[in-house]
Amino acid sequence: MGGDHGCGVVIEGVKRALQADRKISALYLVGDRARIHAALPHRGFRDHRVRIVHASEVLTMEDKPITALRKKRDCSIARAAELVDERKADALVSLGNTGGIFAAATFKLGRVPGVDRGGIATVIPTPDHEFVLLDSGANIECKPLHLAHYAVMGSIYSREILGYKNPRVGILSIGTEDTKGNELTLGAFKLCKRLDINFIGNIEGHDLFRSHVDVVICDGFVGNVVLKTCESLFLAMFMMLKRELTANPKRQLGALLAQNAFRAIRRRLDPEIHSGAPLLGFNGTVMKAHASARERAIANAIHLTTEAIQHRVNQVIASEIARANERLAGAEMSIATSASE
Amino acid sequence: MGGDHGCGVVIEGVKRALQADRKISALYLVGDRARIHAALPHRGFRDHRVRIVHASEVLTMEDKPITALRKKRDCSIARAAELVDERKADALVSLGNTGGIFAAATFKLGRVPGVDRGGIATVIPTPDHEFVLLDSGANIECKPLHLAHYAVMGSIYSREILGYKNPRVGILSIGTEDTKGNELTLGAFKLCKRLDINFIGNIEGHDLFRSHVDVVICDGFVGNVVLKTCESLFLAMFMMLKRELTANPKRQLGALLAQNAFRAIRRRLDPEIHSGAPLLGFNGTVMKAHASARERAIANAIHLTTEAIQHRVNQVIASEIARANERLAGAEMSIATSASE
Repeated sequence: MGGDHGCGVVIEGVKRALQADRKISALYLVGDRARIHAALPHRGFRDHRVRIVHASEVLTMEDKPITALRKKRDCSIARAAELVDERKADALVSLGNTGGIFAAATFKLGRVPGVDRGGIATVIPTPDHEFVLLDSGANIECKPLHLAHYAVMGSIYSREILGYKNPRVGILSIGTEDTKGNELTLGAFKLCKRLDINFIGNIEGHDLFRSHVDVVICDGFVGNVVLKTCESLFLAMFMMLKRELTANPKRQLGALLAQNAFRAIRRRLDPEIHSGAPLLGFNGTVMKAHASARERAIANAIHLTTEAIQHRVNQVIASEIARANERLAGAEMSIATSASE
Repeated sequence: MGGDHGCGVVIEGVKRALQADRKISALYLVGDRARIHAALPHRGFRDHRVRIVHASEVLTMEDKPITALRKKRDCSIARAAELVDERKADALVSLGNTGGIFAAATFKLGRVPGVDRGGIATVIPTPDHEFVLLDSGANIECKPLHLAHYAVMGSIYSREILGYKNPRVGILSIGTEDTKGNELTLGAFKLCKRLDINFIGNIEGHDLFRSHVDVVICDGFVGNVVLKTCESLFLAMFMMLKRELTANPKRQLGALLAQNAFRAIRRRLDPEIHSGAPLLGFNGTVMKAHASARERAIANAIHLTTEAIQHRVNQVIASEIARANERLAGAEMSIATSASE
């Protein structure tokens, strides 16, 4: 029921995903039955794998997630999470309120044992590769341990889903030196050094699009600001490109000749195409698609979801987080001691 | 002595600034006399207004600002700040270590009475206007009061130097609703509502390049990350544009015909051209130019500096901060009370 473009676009995305992926055995459309039915025949879509699960309410973008989840017991995101909790579904995909998805995952599914806080991982494309930004908006008041867990989970996602063999993990800070940062990043730095990951230390904003870091760790406030800033600047540049390229006939001709170049850039960097941000650390695969996602982006998010299931990302997270917590046990004690000195 | 391109480029920038601005009565080049002399004749530059002030040491990018400032007593940034403190100069311009400039301003010049923490204001261009980002990297561990002061100082800079009559001030957060944010931004929100500024509330990353906010307030960690992320994405997009536009002869021809469009975008948005970030809140005008600034950006930074002096920005800050503190006195007490409840 979420998303800016309504039910029909979601269903069209689902149709594409089902056509492309025969391994999906069942797909539940959870939401207002009448609206789903109204959208279905219009698009001429029939597939025996599709089941409709009615939910009478919707968590809106304006709702406060935790309170709304308590009040709207029959909202679509809660019902979808329950399907996963009851093992009827392996995964949950939503275009809705991010806070709502996060709250539903936290309260309906629970966290993987050993994970202190879940996080949202957004995959951001650069000219030559992709990096995972984690947390990109769920966990606003982070502790160092949360960032350390993000480092582990981000590494796993980068390795299993994006295919980076030994993903380079950096903490987003204000300088690359070990001593640069705030209390949170400095604490996380100490913990990350203890982990069995390819930790490259601090990175700064300048490094993000230089393709030398694969997993970028930060708190949800910073991550959300970075993500949205990138989207905003990208759109502003394309808007300006369009305006300048149509300013006179000579430029228009030039733009026509070079149009494939702009398409290639858009295809590569457009944040709206690269949809599908997993919520990591929960008992169940949870995928957030961009609210403005269209058919292709929705199909892509569903594809990423099946990839996450096939690569058993959650099981890997459980075992690697357990190992990480063993390694960190000593470190946490020493940090606690130095803080109380 | 700072900057990536050495002394000669700085001197060439100074030359341009002096040619353009007859109101500058004296300009001190502070640094290693031998290196300055070596750079001078090569560029064929003579102007009776230029004076060389020798300083035997340099604060490097690797130096820890506060300790280095104590040890390197004869470093150029300290000597330059002393000229301002002794009223021999009205302003200080540097391309060097930002933390070093900030530390020199704090310890050699001191803050404007009533200002709790200085901040760095960076002017960021959007397709249709410019906004001030404050703090963009000086004050990492901020309090709500610091952000409130940034709101006042940013408004003044936007009004006096950029010419916005009633600048719209927003707090950079993770949603536009009043209740979205972290402890710092929520506290600052309450204070900003009390101020005599055009406070538009919270803004998010998506709003930055949509030209509807003129002053963006945040802590130095977030500001620094945002600033560098924008620079990184801008450069990545231009790099990719270049690569795609030269991929085949047809595109190359198109790019040739449309080349003025790309130039216009670069001229408008390139962060390296829009150099000159003032450090606000200090007793003396202090301007940070980008380390990678070239001649034009350096001349531009000097021009902005003379503008700040002429508009008596510091005097306006002193009087408006005094008024703001009166308005905030009640608010702070009530915040302190609610925090202790």
